Amino acid sequence: MTAAVLSIGTELTRGEIENTNCTWLCEQITACGMQVTECLSVADEMSKIRTALRRLAAEHRVIVCTGGLGPTTDDMTSEAVALELGEPLRRDEASLESLQARYAAANVHFSDSNAKQADFPHSATVLENAWGTAPGFSVDIDNCRAYFLPGVPREMKPMFQKHIASFVSAQVAARTAQIRLRSFGAPESAVNDRLRGIEAEHDVVIGYRAHFPEIEVKVMATRADADSAQTAARGAALVVKERLGDLVYAEGDRDLPDVVGDLLRARGWWLSLAESCTGGLASQLITRTPASDYYKGSVVCYSNDVKEHLLGVPKAVLEEHGAVSEATVQHLAEGARKTFDSEVAISFSGIAGPSGGTDEKPVGLIHYAVATPKGVVTAHRVFRWGRTRNQLAAAWAGLDLLRRQLLDLPPH
Amino acid sequence: MTAAVLSIGTELTRGEIENTNCTWLCEQITACGMQVTECLSVADEMSKIRTALRRLAAEHRVIVCTGGLGPTTDDMTSEAVALELGEPLRRDEASLESLQARYAAANVHFSDSNAKQADFPHSATVLENAWGTAPGFSVDIDNCRAYFLPGVPREMKPMFQKHIASFVSAQVAARTAQIRLRSFGAPESAVNDRLRGIEAEHDVVIGYRAHFPEIEVKVMATRADADSAQTAARGAALVVKERLGDLVYAEGDRDLPDVVGDLLRARGWWLSLAESCTGGLASQLITRTPASDYYKGSVVCYSNDVKEHLLGVPKAVLEEHGAVSEATVQHLAEGARKTFDSEVAISFSGIAGPSGGTDEKPVGLIHYAVATPKGVVTAHRVFRWGRTRNQLAAAWAGLDLLRRQLLDLPPH
Repeated sequence: MTAAVLSIGTELTRGEIENTNCTWLCEQITACGMQVTECLSVADEMSKIRTALRRLAAEHRVIVCTGGLGPTTDDMTSEAVALELGEPLRRDEASLESLQARYAAANVHFSDSNAKQADFPHSATVLENAWGTAPGFSVDIDNCRAYFLPGVPREMKPMFQKHIASFVSAQVAARTAQIRLRSFGAPESAVNDRLRGIEAEHDVVIGYRAHFPEIEVKVMATRADADSAQTAARGAALVVKERLGDLVYAEGDRDLPDVVGDLLRARGWWLSLAESCTGGLASQLITRTPASDYYKGSVVCYSNDVKEHLLGVPKAVLEEHGAVSEATVQHLAEGARKTFDSEVAISFSGIAGPSGGTDEKPVGLIHYAVATPKGVVTAHRVFRWGRTRNQLAAAWAGLDLLRRQLLDLPPH
Repeated sequence: MTAAVLSIGTELTRGEIENTNCTWLCEQITACGMQVTECLSVADEMSKIRTALRRLAAEHRVIVCTGGLGPTTDDMTSEAVALELGEPLRRDEASLESLQARYAAANVHFSDSNAKQADFPHSATVLENAWGTAPGFSVDIDNCRAYFLPGVPREMKPMFQKHIASFVSAQVAARTAQIRLRSFGAPESAVNDRLRGIEAEHDVVIGYRAHFPEIEVKVMATRADADSAQTAARGAALVVKERLGDLVYAEGDRDLPDVVGDLLRARGWWLSLAESCTGGLASQLITRTPASDYYKGSVVCYSNDVKEHLLGVPKAVLEEHGAVSEATVQHLAEGARKTFDSEVAISFSGIAGPSGGTDEKPVGLIHYAVATPKGVVTAHRVFRWGRTRNQLAAAWAGLDLLRRQLLDLPPH
């Protein structure tokens, strides 16, 4: 009772785009409780597509296939499936009308090649696509249910949820529940060590998704029914949270900036930043989601005269301690609070790399500080990840230090 | 004479990590002139791995496989290959010594499970790994050369270049040359339309890599020898450049901020930014590579009082025209030039979304401006990509407007 993911497209086998569809589908099918044991990408070649379909259908209960549903000659999924089933294609009138209406609305000429998108194998069930042009379809190949979806992620994802997820769940006798915990501040091996024994003791599976610089911990329980699975996952997740303590900053889809934003909104406090080595990245992380109700702005102070004139770091401090120092980030955080008239501020100054390090101040050394009405807290780290990851790790470390200050937790 | 990429690891079939290795390998093998017709990912299961090896070896000249070379019980690649070949494993003494030395240097205990990483199928050629612990290896399975590399990208990539690339190139009688052109400002379909006919006329393949918001155009020529391939690719690339005109901002690995940085360095000019809706993203793009010799910094002016007090936008302008207006970005750019004492400045103000739009100023409307010693140029766009992509497209549009000003090109 396993599943396979099939991706069709020469742009994939040429390495022109990342196959993010496949990763997403694997995650979703796994979350439905079914095991994906293989993923296959093939070029736009009729023989390759047919061979792949035949083999995967013989070995799996479910195939989810993306791509090859467009209007061009490269798009041959429907035809390949029909040939493999020994069936003719039929034109689906409802799909044709809906396609024509969409093209008319966009004022685009509708040609014969577009009409091709309404052709399906004779025994196919058409899957409505409310998010784009090409409908999907499903067929049964012997004992395998095969689903065909367009390759555009924003169409593919809701179509999977609407047309496929419940079928996949229904195939696995047991029910699976999953709880995702987000952690920051310890490497995967250390998180792994702390959670040793929980899988066996609670009969759950613990998965990790390293999404630098955070580690997402997934607690999955499979039981006879959904409620028991949920209860088991919840019980094990509690133990995971206990073991990881304040490394866990959120559950589910909340990002660290969202969590910090909620804490600030609850207090009615404003945030501002002073960023040197992070170069605007901390500000960018905060503004990925709407933040204008708690975030005032940032000064990216790449040059020393900006640190001095816009943020009031005394020239003597810069000369005596250098731009990358505890004293400088302390003044930067206080300066940002004053300049932006905000209750709290985070500041960063470091040597992101790849050059510019000395014996005393190596590449990867980052000082950061958080200023609140209670005062200023400083910290520093030496990261060894390369420039862009050093910047990312630094931005997260600063945001996490603010989270800890707002929750009265000790610095990590 | 085709290739396949095999990726081993349950973390892939569970969707826990993106399979970026596979994409990278496909791109490299294609650039060597060999066609990849399928990519397969399988879970850590002995039977799946063996079946995959057998089938792929029967159908391809080359397999490049990653993963499953670590020290844990999940790592079974060597054993699977040995079983498939009907050979015993042998312990490679040179690899063992080098492994032990690495563990000793890192002061980590060396156990029997670590020694396993020096075990290879009897007929294997060991591939040195100068970038990490696990060596790779290659074997011949009938007429297929199969390569096995560790899954860690920073080890896998140089190992492919050192041990595999030249073998792949040597298999294809012809030689391939590739030239990559980076374009910004027109969608893929429009770029595609402009390049119609070049493939047939110049006997080249034109590939596209959409890496939002830019389009990379790859011109690939295959000829009897390397020089002819290079000449053919160069000739076709010239025509591509002619057709695309100033949409092409660079060749090869140069990013737009690098190009802008070079133009500024050549003049000895300093850059600063005033960012509202882009929230620090433009600054982050600039500082991904070292920029302290031309970049002074940015004010992320999320709130209106920051626009007024730090950047000198008159209150009357904000009240009359609103924060998202041509007049405001004009004042912001001039304000940034003055505040940072820089020769040039870019400013941004818009409605990134998802909410905050009106009939007159819809979500996705972005105003931006470039101030230089010659004066201020403004532009605006309405993007419909969703918040984070609207921000990214806006940041690029501003940087591209600066590039155009520095090159005396018209705004796009």
